[in-house]
Amino acid sequence: MNRENYTKRFMFEALKEAQKAFDKDEVPIGAVVVCNGQIISRAHNLTETLTDPTAHAEMQAITAASNYFGGKYLNQCTLFVTVEPCPMCAGAMYWAQLGKLVYGTPDPKRGFTVVSTKILHPKTEVENGILAEDCSKIITSFFQKKR
Amino acid sequence: MNRENYTKRFMFEALKEAQKAFDKDEVPIGAVVVCNGQIISRAHNLTETLTDPTAHAEMQAITAASNYFGGKYLNQCTLFVTVEPCPMCAGAMYWAQLGKLVYGTPDPKRGFTVVSTKILHPKTEVENGILAEDCSKIITSFFQKKR
Repeated sequence: MNRENYTKRFMFEALKEAQKAFDKDEVPIGAVVVCNGQIISRAHNLTETLTDPTAHAEMQAITAASNYFGGKYLNQCTLFVTVEPCPMCAGAMYWAQLGKLVYGTPDPKRGFTVVSTKILHPKTEVENGILAEDCSKIITSFFQKKR
Repeated sequence: MNRENYTKRFMFEALKEAQKAFDKDEVPIGAVVVCNGQIISRAHNLTETLTDPTAHAEMQAITAASNYFGGKYLNQCTLFVTVEPCPMCAGAMYWAQLGKLVYGTPDPKRGFTVVSTKILHPKTEVENGILAEDCSKIITSFFQKKR
């Protein structure tokens, strides 16, 4: 599998998580953590279901991955998430020393890059725009349904 | 009880939490969430115990308080924490629309104000320097012990 397909494949898994959030009437954002080509954890936004403003997809995926490895550092891992992380989630990635972050579509309102690019760990690689249209479309249709 | 004693009283409760972390060999930071003069939740750093880089005192205190209220917003609450919050925790306070943040001692390395003051919600009031010496001393003695 070439690199482009590899990246798309995991973003597609994050999109499946976003769809699970959509089906629960949660803001549809999904994430997976990958290490050596294997999915270590997967999660979707559950802030309403859990009544917890910290229950973003990325936070849960990081907690689960750290638990799996029995260590706090995810420097060998890539986190795929459908939407650009907020400062809270980017701050969690800092503590995990995340190896690489791949996100689908930007969040011009509350994405970490809007607030400060210094939130992420300096060693974390960043790639974006993967399946951006699909990642954006599911969010747009969620908010259209809400209106 | 006058305002100064009120604030010190709750910071002292946060310090008690920090001591619990110290006793577990965790970086000694503690937090309490207060609403109408009542402590709603209390927590201390558990990142090592839980193998979870997101298990900061503030994160747990916010999750527990939201759970208690059955709502994601803590705009009527004050969070007392012994050390200046990091960007992750300040980002969580943003989503909770925290009413007020009171912290003891600054964190010149990774405090949110070092990274960006835009991380907090614009409506969140901030006060600091409460029992600063005690809040700082417990951290210093923890790292001295580690050396």
